[in-house]
Amino acid sequence: MSTRVQPPTGPAIVREQVDSVLRDFLHQKATQAQGRGLPPEVAEVLGDFLAAGGKKLRPLLCVTGWQAAGGTGDLAPVLRVGAALEMFHAFCLIHDDIMDNSATRRGRPTVHRALAALYAPGRRGPLANRMGSNTAILIGDLALTWSDELVHTAGLTASRLASVLPLLDTMRTEVMYGQYLDVCATGTPTADLARALAIIRYKTAKYTVERPLHIGAALVAAPESVHAALSAYALPIGEAFQLRDDLLGVFGDPAATGKPSLDDLREGKHTALVGLALQRADAIEQHLLQTRIGDPGLDEPTAARIRRTLTTTGARGTVEQMIMDRYEQAQRALEQVPFPPQAVAALRELADLAVKRSA
Amino acid sequence: MSTRVQPPTGPAIVREQVDSVLRDFLHQKATQAQGRGLPPEVAEVLGDFLAAGGKKLRPLLCVTGWQAAGGTGDLAPVLRVGAALEMFHAFCLIHDDIMDNSATRRGRPTVHRALAALYAPGRRGPLANRMGSNTAILIGDLALTWSDELVHTAGLTASRLASVLPLLDTMRTEVMYGQYLDVCATGTPTADLARALAIIRYKTAKYTVERPLHIGAALVAAPESVHAALSAYALPIGEAFQLRDDLLGVFGDPAATGKPSLDDLREGKHTALVGLALQRADAIEQHLLQTRIGDPGLDEPTAARIRRTLTTTGARGTVEQMIMDRYEQAQRALEQVPFPPQAVAALRELADLAVKRSA
Repeated sequence: MSTRVQPPTGPAIVREQVDSVLRDFLHQKATQAQGRGLPPEVAEVLGDFLAAGGKKLRPLLCVTGWQAAGGTGDLAPVLRVGAALEMFHAFCLIHDDIMDNSATRRGRPTVHRALAALYAPGRRGPLANRMGSNTAILIGDLALTWSDELVHTAGLTASRLASVLPLLDTMRTEVMYGQYLDVCATGTPTADLARALAIIRYKTAKYTVERPLHIGAALVAAPESVHAALSAYALPIGEAFQLRDDLLGVFGDPAATGKPSLDDLREGKHTALVGLALQRADAIEQHLLQTRIGDPGLDEPTAARIRRTLTTTGARGTVEQMIMDRYEQAQRALEQVPFPPQAVAALRELADLAVKRSA
Repeated sequence: MSTRVQPPTGPAIVREQVDSVLRDFLHQKATQAQGRGLPPEVAEVLGDFLAAGGKKLRPLLCVTGWQAAGGTGDLAPVLRVGAALEMFHAFCLIHDDIMDNSATRRGRPTVHRALAALYAPGRRGPLANRMGSNTAILIGDLALTWSDELVHTAGLTASRLASVLPLLDTMRTEVMYGQYLDVCATGTPTADLARALAIIRYKTAKYTVERPLHIGAALVAAPESVHAALSAYALPIGEAFQLRDDLLGVFGDPAATGKPSLDDLREGKHTALVGLALQRADAIEQHLLQTRIGDPGLDEPTAARIRRTLTTTGARGTVEQMIMDRYEQAQRALEQVPFPPQAVAALRELADLAVKRSA
């Protein structure tokens, strides 16, 4: 264990500092654009989206991975790489909301809807909507590019940069494949639990938890054993995180989650919850689930019947059990790890945050 | 001048070798995906798109920039970076075709249309179309990510990689801003020639010509003077290239260009051609141009009237003159450059290719 002074790395401080990196970066982008006669709203819309909140889970995990691998000293490059992960996540969410045609995110209009409203004056409705989607695709693309730029300007040594870049490539490929599986399965829910779990693994367990930890660890040249120990924690807790998300998407309080509780059911997301219910439902319940999950016109009374069926078939209870099993597996994985106690404490806290939440 | 043996770098050989890099890379991606239960069609669809042709202008310019800066010896890393530029361009075109809702590209169905057809069996029409767009957005995103991966695995030294990455960041930001300007101006053509030229500068002159040359030059640690000499050639020839493209989009032969000749007019692209015509048109002609350019239902007889107006106002002739002025400016810029004769010859040839073409 190092005896050097550790910089403060509590969640509130990390969130605040990541916000500050992103704010400064985008302010500079807006100023540069304005100076060249380019539209400053591109960076401003992205800045508003990032400022609207979010858990900043990936930057927190990046810092924690760095600590777990024995990182000490200057936190600035770690925070900047963490900010890059948050910027990449903004890209994912902006494109995701276009694909799902979602109206709100974090209690506000989604980026494509906000842009459609911005460009509405003087344009016909369909043209304004298309401009909203098209400019949002481009702002998402820019967020992806700028996430790279944040990494490239993080002041990493050549050898650290060389070990981080392949992990970023892998992370991005994994989440895009996960998203692809999700898009292909959406609207036609089936009893295929393995497929639902594959989506969870790529979209969330690897993308949201494992890779941010690995990237943080790669910032201090961690040995392979540290990466493996991080994976043993990350994959179960990441699955638990997404299973909780799926439950909140159907049973959560919209005031807490910031999104309407009918969205997931209307969208027809293929989740473990729905897969399990379809495995166990009788013929009448199967008919209800198969015809109404994925129905864009789904109303609240029918949604309430679906929720009851998801509960009475035992699917909801099984998912709760799956969450607890994975939560405990992740906690056990932390028992023998070679990480500093501060990192272990942070990982235990993040496990609680991921699993025991209402938003 | 180096007396070392130069590798063969003629256009046909570069195209063939870039194709081979892309084919091998995507074949490996498809195999890896299949092994992990992930959809192999992602890499296959992208491979089909890349195999369908294209001028490979950016890889050619990357190789030429490398030669201009005195590059000799192993061409493999240069070709791989060139292949990365082609992969990035695939990302641009795939997203572009979604934004424009284009049906064909290079004489084949666009990626989102091909995917909609692939996913049509067993799905309602609107759902299949949405799946086509959504999976195409994701395949575009993967092309962007894989373009990075090609650069990261090109075997560059740490210092070469460190000088290429910021250029890639700049190139990507520029083309996305250019695209953003284009999207915002599309559908509402005006007489604003400066805006049309700004779109051309960012979308084409910098993206298609200047940055690929700079990136090639950065692969041999070229001094700033080489970059400046490349820009003096690149910006005028890049503008000429796009002005030619705009003429071909309206007056070209669909059999040669591979896209319907009504698309650009129906789309209502804000081009220098249309801007100039609006500056010079009488009241009746202005009404025709302003109400029918950007009309998705535009028919061939009305398009013929628009083409006549673009010609009789002198706009077409002025654009031809602008192309020739820029072509000659680029040729003059090559008179005093510190490049090897082989590179100068290649740049002169590319200038001809860019300007004097029918497709």
